[in-house]
Amino acid sequence: MIATASPVTDLADRIRAGSHVSLARGLTLVESRSGVATELLAEIWKDSGRAHVVGVTGPAGSGKSTLVTQMGHEYVERGAKVAILAVDPSSAYSGGAILGDRIRMTELAGRENVFIRSMASRGATGGLSRAVLDGIVLLDAAGYDVVILETVGVGQSEVDVISVAHSVLVVSVPGLGDDIQAIKAGLIEIADIHVVNKADRPGADLTVKQLRESIRLAHRQGGDWNVPILKTTAATGDGVAELLDETAKHRGWMTEHGALREVERRNAATRIRWAAEAIIAERLRPGHRDFDVAVDALIARDEEPRQAAARLLTAMAVNPTRINGRRPL
Amino acid sequence: MIATASPVTDLADRIRAGSHVSLARGLTLVESRSGVATELLAEIWKDSGRAHVVGVTGPAGSGKSTLVTQMGHEYVERGAKVAILAVDPSSAYSGGAILGDRIRMTELAGRENVFIRSMASRGATGGLSRAVLDGIVLLDAAGYDVVILETVGVGQSEVDVISVAHSVLVVSVPGLGDDIQAIKAGLIEIADIHVVNKADRPGADLTVKQLRESIRLAHRQGGDWNVPILKTTAATGDGVAELLDETAKHRGWMTEHGALREVERRNAATRIRWAAEAIIAERLRPGHRDFDVAVDALIARDEEPRQAAARLLTAMAVNPTRINGRRPL
Repeated sequence: MIATASPVTDLADRIRAGSHVSLARGLTLVESRSGVATELLAEIWKDSGRAHVVGVTGPAGSGKSTLVTQMGHEYVERGAKVAILAVDPSSAYSGGAILGDRIRMTELAGRENVFIRSMASRGATGGLSRAVLDGIVLLDAAGYDVVILETVGVGQSEVDVISVAHSVLVVSVPGLGDDIQAIKAGLIEIADIHVVNKADRPGADLTVKQLRESIRLAHRQGGDWNVPILKTTAATGDGVAELLDETAKHRGWMTEHGALREVERRNAATRIRWAAEAIIAERLRPGHRDFDVAVDALIARDEEPRQAAARLLTAMAVNPTRINGRRPL
Repeated sequence: MIATASPVTDLADRIRAGSHVSLARGLTLVESRSGVATELLAEIWKDSGRAHVVGVTGPAGSGKSTLVTQMGHEYVERGAKVAILAVDPSSAYSGGAILGDRIRMTELAGRENVFIRSMASRGATGGLSRAVLDGIVLLDAAGYDVVILETVGVGQSEVDVISVAHSVLVVSVPGLGDDIQAIKAGLIEIADIHVVNKADRPGADLTVKQLRESIRLAHRQGGDWNVPILKTTAATGDGVAELLDETAKHRGWMTEHGALREVERRNAATRIRWAAEAIIAERLRPGHRDFDVAVDALIARDEEPRQAAARLLTAMAVNPTRINGRRPL
């Protein structure tokens, strides 16, 4: 029971070894944005970078949760380890309620090689995006081959969150004509695969047709990937296998055309900026000698704010060990 | 008509020389947070630091605008140059409407040595606080002896904005018992002077008594300044001269007890942090060679995000001229 390594290293080891309890603890640290989370991420970063991150989004009532559950089962059948991160940016407004519709997931959650977690916004949307991005690193390093990122609702926050995924699946449903309009507003541009769920309902073919037209009109970025429109009936599992095939195909295309690397570059850029902001926030505050000196120089009008900031960044660089210094758990 | 200096230097010169048009232009730049604003502030910073910043806040209906107008007249009578910055953090919700009750100010605005400006939030409250802090620098450098910072409403945003002032005046009014409760929520702690306006109304003495009790119960920071409660009737001007006397007295006390310097230190710290964040945002983005190299190192798992960020801050420091580089207007 005597710790031979640091607590953070221990936690990282246990996450790598597949402990669900440690992984859950790590995700809680990431959500709370504690300093320990930064250390944990630094420790575990080199073990990440293998998982396929699949985003699933769409309006309420489209049956996303059921679809994601079925996808989870199918991935397990195919021998993959699968993690589901259900993100609810709006729960800050609804009072932090956990996602409904979780009951169906209980069975899936009980299976081996499955990990399910809800993540809610505890403040700014930016904070949630960061927690999601960090959470993916932990799940990835824990050996999950696929991380399904499910968002609830359709809005800018959802677009921000989902855009960290390698493959974005947008779910529509027949008979919600106006919702397809809503989707046009922002999701057509980011969809890699369209799913018309509840395809046993009347109007499924019309929805497919409307989506095809929307895709044609949209100026989609991302090269010559031919965005497919798939029909599924999540309740019965119909079309889910084909959806997984198509998702795998998309990943292959992404890798081949350098598009996967582009997503990774974008995510890496975001991570570096956030890390830099964290360093700044940590070092540029009263009580740090260099900072206090700069404050005095500013008041004396010996320097202007931008000059002082530039000088402080220099001073920080002279002391890189202090920047990388570890704190105890 | 041939410019001999840079456009930013020209603008700074004209602001220093007292041009209302140039000052208004500078404030618009500051509000829009353009890169030019940063250059302008760097140019003009050394000329600031003399103005007495007086914050005036309190609930709607307390007659703040009328009071501020009367204070403006009185300051001018005493030979001071006075600027009024009316801040409306809530106008982001009401659709950017300019403050009502501005009609009374028109007469004041017409006087020499007076400058009046409204500032509304165009996004995050943080953005407004920054615009206010930067705006004060411009008004200060333009030679205004007093900058009155008037906020509308009572909330955390108002507290954030008003806390940059040297002297904070909190306005109450008789007969709004519940509003005094609201004031207790956050303004008692930051008030340097209490004003019971509309003191010709019944209940003024009760309001004074309630305030006195609130002050007694509050754990006020800021040493042994004895927070006075003044009665005014802004509509007639009664009590306004005494209010100015008390405000001057507070400034004297602040200077004597090092409290003015404390406010300046706090504001300077905020300015340095914002400047550092701006430098980071400017340099840590795709297209900058060092940044692109760091992104690649991150993806290759040669570095983790915090390491990469620390190294980038070092690289920035090696190139300080690039940090301080001026851009053309």
